[in-house]
Amino acid sequence: MADLTGRSIIGFRAGGGGDPSIFGINPATGESLQPGYSAVSETELNSAAGLAADAFEVFGKTSSAARTAFLRKIADNIEAIGDDLAKHAPQETGLPEGRIRMETGRTCGQLRLFASVAEEGSWVDARIDHADPERAPVPKPDVRSMERPLGSVAVFCASNFPLAFSVAGGDTASAFAAGCPVVVKAHHSHPGTAELVGQAVSAAVRDCGLPEGTFSLVYGPGRETGSALVRHPAIKAAGFTGSRAGGQALMKLAADRPEPIPFYAEMSSINPVFILPGAMAERSEQLATGLHGSMTLGVGQFCTNPGLTILDGTADIEPFVAKLSELVGGTPGATMLNPGISDAYASGAGTLGGSDVVETVALGQVQDGQCQAGAALFRTSAEAFLSDKSLGAELFGPSTLVVTHDGTDKMLALAKSLEGQLTATVHGTEADLEANRELLDVLETRVGRVVINGFPTGVEVCHAMVHGGPFPATADGRSTSVGTNAIHRFTRSVCYQGFPDALLPAELREANPLGIRRLVDGKST
Amino acid sequence: MADLTGRSIIGFRAGGGGDPSIFGINPATGESLQPGYSAVSETELNSAAGLAADAFEVFGKTSSAARTAFLRKIADNIEAIGDDLAKHAPQETGLPEGRIRMETGRTCGQLRLFASVAEEGSWVDARIDHADPERAPVPKPDVRSMERPLGSVAVFCASNFPLAFSVAGGDTASAFAAGCPVVVKAHHSHPGTAELVGQAVSAAVRDCGLPEGTFSLVYGPGRETGSALVRHPAIKAAGFTGSRAGGQALMKLAADRPEPIPFYAEMSSINPVFILPGAMAERSEQLATGLHGSMTLGVGQFCTNPGLTILDGTADIEPFVAKLSELVGGTPGATMLNPGISDAYASGAGTLGGSDVVETVALGQVQDGQCQAGAALFRTSAEAFLSDKSLGAELFGPSTLVVTHDGTDKMLALAKSLEGQLTATVHGTEADLEANRELLDVLETRVGRVVINGFPTGVEVCHAMVHGGPFPATADGRSTSVGTNAIHRFTRSVCYQGFPDALLPAELREANPLGIRRLVDGKST
Repeated sequence: MADLTGRSIIGFRAGGGGDPSIFGINPATGESLQPGYSAVSETELNSAAGLAADAFEVFGKTSSAARTAFLRKIADNIEAIGDDLAKHAPQETGLPEGRIRMETGRTCGQLRLFASVAEEGSWVDARIDHADPERAPVPKPDVRSMERPLGSVAVFCASNFPLAFSVAGGDTASAFAAGCPVVVKAHHSHPGTAELVGQAVSAAVRDCGLPEGTFSLVYGPGRETGSALVRHPAIKAAGFTGSRAGGQALMKLAADRPEPIPFYAEMSSINPVFILPGAMAERSEQLATGLHGSMTLGVGQFCTNPGLTILDGTADIEPFVAKLSELVGGTPGATMLNPGISDAYASGAGTLGGSDVVETVALGQVQDGQCQAGAALFRTSAEAFLSDKSLGAELFGPSTLVVTHDGTDKMLALAKSLEGQLTATVHGTEADLEANRELLDVLETRVGRVVINGFPTGVEVCHAMVHGGPFPATADGRSTSVGTNAIHRFTRSVCYQGFPDALLPAELREANPLGIRRLVDGKST
Repeated sequence: MADLTGRSIIGFRAGGGGDPSIFGINPATGESLQPGYSAVSETELNSAAGLAADAFEVFGKTSSAARTAFLRKIADNIEAIGDDLAKHAPQETGLPEGRIRMETGRTCGQLRLFASVAEEGSWVDARIDHADPERAPVPKPDVRSMERPLGSVAVFCASNFPLAFSVAGGDTASAFAAGCPVVVKAHHSHPGTAELVGQAVSAAVRDCGLPEGTFSLVYGPGRETGSALVRHPAIKAAGFTGSRAGGQALMKLAADRPEPIPFYAEMSSINPVFILPGAMAERSEQLATGLHGSMTLGVGQFCTNPGLTILDGTADIEPFVAKLSELVGGTPGATMLNPGISDAYASGAGTLGGSDVVETVALGQVQDGQCQAGAALFRTSAEAFLSDKSLGAELFGPSTLVVTHDGTDKMLALAKSLEGQLTATVHGTEADLEANRELLDVLETRVGRVVINGFPTGVEVCHAMVHGGPFPATADGRSTSVGTNAIHRFTRSVCYQGFPDALLPAELREANPLGIRRLVDGKST
C-alpha cells in the first residue's frame, strides 16, 4: 500500500509536518487512524494558491490534447491504487468495500468522460462572425469567441462521496478539463483516502509535464482553511458539496470578497416523491420496495435521498404504508460516515418523531457501536406539513416522511410550498400523468431533475444529467455538479475582435484545425 | 405623437397618478419636461412582480414560435413610433436625432436577432442520453435536458442607451426570448422615452395574447424602487447597466436575499488601449484620429470608452500625442445626458487634472449652458499609474489618460495591474503582435473582449460578441449583455428522467419535431 505521509501536498512539495490535528476515525469503532494529518499553515495555503495562479498561465493555455492526456493519466493512476483505496477508504468511512470499488470506477469514468469532452473539443462553444468591410454605415468587424478557463479553482471534498465528489471528483475533473488549476481542501472524514488520490493526481501532473501548481491538496480545520481558500485573491471560483450551513457561510464569503467569485455549493434537498393514485392502485408493493431501497441506499447518505413521500390519502394507501413500514422495521442497522453525521441524524429523527403532528410509523434495527443509524418512517398530514416549515428540513440519513393529502389541490399546494430541490419524482400510470401535467409544470420550476417512475438516488454521469437545482438545493441553480455540462462552471466566454488568424486560439482559426463544431455567421457547422 | 401619461405600466393597467416626482430634464436647457411621472407605490410594485410570477406559468411554457412572433411584434411596434422617439428622446437625453434613429434601429435589430434565435430553437442545448435497460449492474435510465427560463426578471434602464439598453433593450429581449416575464425599472434620465417604448411592448403583449404580467414598467426613485425590485421574492434574476456604486449595492442585495438570485450588472471599465512601437512608427496620425473619434463618440458616454491609452515611451510617441492634443483641443463642447453625469465628469476631470503626477495635455472647447462637457487629454507615467490606484478609476466622459512606460516589462506590469475590463485594445504591426503574445495572454484573463487594430466603442450585436468581463467590469464575468449568448443569463438546465415522450417538451421528443440541433448520446445531431 502507498505510504501515507500525514501532510498536505503543496504543488510538488509536502506540507510541513507539525503536530497532527486531523485524524481519520473508523466510525464503527471510534478508533483513530494513523497517520494523523497536520493542518496547513497560512504560508502553505498562500503558496498553494499562488502556485495555482502561476500554473494557470501555462495550464490555462494547454491544448485540449494535453488536458485529455492528463485526465486519462489521473484515471489510470487511481485505478492502479484501487486495492489500496478498497482497503483504506472503508476504514475511514464505514462504507463497504464494494461501494468503494464502484465509486472508484465511477470516479475514473468521470475523469475519462471529461477527457473525451476535452478531446472532442466542441464544448468551447466557438463562434465566428466574419467581417464585412463594405457594410454601411460602419464596416462590420471580425468577431470570434469561445469559452476560456476562469483561473484557479478551490474544490471542497464531500464526506459522503470520498472519491466521486472529493479530491479527483466531478468538480476537479471539470476544472482540469476546462484548464483551471485546482486546490483541494480535504475532508476530515477521509483524510487518508484524500491523500492516496492526491498522490495519484500529483503523479499525473509530473508525468504530463504540467506546472507544479496545477494541483494541491490541503488539510485543515473546516471553517478556517475553507474560509481562507474561498477568500484567497488567487482563487477565482469554488465548488463545494456539504451542509446548508457550511455552504451558505462560504457563499457569503465568496459574495463579500473585494472581487466576488462564482461559488457552486450543493447543499440540501429532500427530494420529494409523489405517488399518484393509479400507480398506487397498480403496484403499491413494488413502490414500497423501490422507495425503501432508495431511502436506505448508502445508509441514506445521498444528496438525492427521498426524504419526503407525498401520497393521495383518498386512494388506498394503507397497503403501501404497511409494506414500507414492514421493510423499514426489518432494515438492519448500519454505520454512518462519521459522528457528526450520525449525531445529526439521531437528533433530527428524535425531533421529528417527537413532534405532536408526526407519527413514527416504523423504526429499523440499530446495532451496538459508534455511529449507528436505524432506518425510520414518519408520517404527517398535508396541513401539518404546510403549517410547520421545520418538517421540510433535510434529515440526512435513512428516513422518509410520508405526507398524506386529500387530492389535487392540496398536492399542488404541497408542491408549490417546496424550496429548491435537486430532484422531484412522480410515480403514475399514463392516465395519472396525463391528469397531473400541472404537477409536473410546478415541479419543473423547483428542481434540477424531474424523475418519472424511478427513484432519485443513482445520478447517471452523462451529457444530459443535471445535478443541481434552485437555491437552497445549490448556491447557483444555473449549474450542475454531475455530467459534462459541469465544465461550464469554470469558464467564461472571451471575444477576439480583429485578430490575425495566427494569433487566434486553434479553436477559432479560419481553417478549423481541430475540426470542432462551431457557430459560423449564425450557422452551426 | 403617442400620448404620454406620466404613469407606470402595471400589466394591462396604468399605475396611480399621484403627485409626479420624476421629470425628464432637457440637459441642454435645464427645462423640466412634461408630463412628470408618479413614483410607483409599494402595492403597485408588488402587483407588477406578482403578475409577472403568474405570467411565468404561461409565458414560460410558450412555444418558441410564440416568443418569436412576440419579439418581432415588439420590434414592429417600436419602428412604428420611430418618429415619436426621434422627436422626444433627444429632448430628454441631449443625444442627436441621428443617434436616436440609429439606436432605434439597433434595438429593433436586437429584438429580431433574438427572435431568430428563438425561432431556430437550438439555443436550448437539448441533450438526450438514451436508456439502456440491459446495462449491468444497474440499468441506464433515459435522461434528457434543456435550458428553461429562470422566472421573472427585473431589468434596469441605462441612462446612456435610452433604447438599446433600456425598456426593450438587450436584457429584455433575451429574457423574453428565454421565456421570462420582465419588470422594467425606468431611468429618471429618459422617462418619456421609456413610456413610449413601454407602450409599444405592452401593445405587443396584448396583440400576441400573452398574459398581462409578461411586461410591466415602473417609475420610482432609483435606490428605493430598484432595491425593492431586486429584493422582491417573485423576481428570479436581474440585469443592470450603470454605475459601480449602484451596481455593487444591488449585487449585495441580490446575494443577501433569503433566496439569492443571479444578478448581472455592467458597471465600470476604462478599456485600455495599448499602442505598440511598430504601429506607432507606421501610423501615428491615423491612430490619434481613431482614438480621438472613439473617446469622444457620444460625448464619451459609452461603457467601452477608451479611458486609458498606454504608450511605449521608448518609441517616438510625441507626434501621436501632439496630434491627439490638437484634436482634443479642437473638439467642440457637447451636452451630456444629465446633470449627475456631467457633474461627475467635471469633478473627476478636475481631480485627475489637479493631481501632482498628472499633466493636463489638452482640453476641448466647452459651450455655455447646462450639462456641458469638454474633451480632455491627460498624461502620466507608468510609475505614477502603478502607485496610485485612483488614477485607474473610470472617468465617464470624453477623456483619456495617456500612460507612458519604458518597455515590455513595465507594459506587462501595467496590464497585470488592471482590474477586470469590458475590453482591451492592442494596436500593432504583425511583428509587434508576434513579439507581444504575452501581452495578449495577460489581457485575455482580464477582459471580455480583446480588440486588435480597432477601437473598443461600437459593440457589434452578433453571435460571437462578449460584452462582459471580470469584476468590476461586470457583476458576473461568465456572462454577456450583448449578443445572442445573453439568452443564457436567464435560463438554467432542467433534466427530465424517464419521461413518456408525450410529456416531454417538444425540444426533447424522440422525433425532434422542431428539427433543432441536439446532443444525442454524446453526438451532435
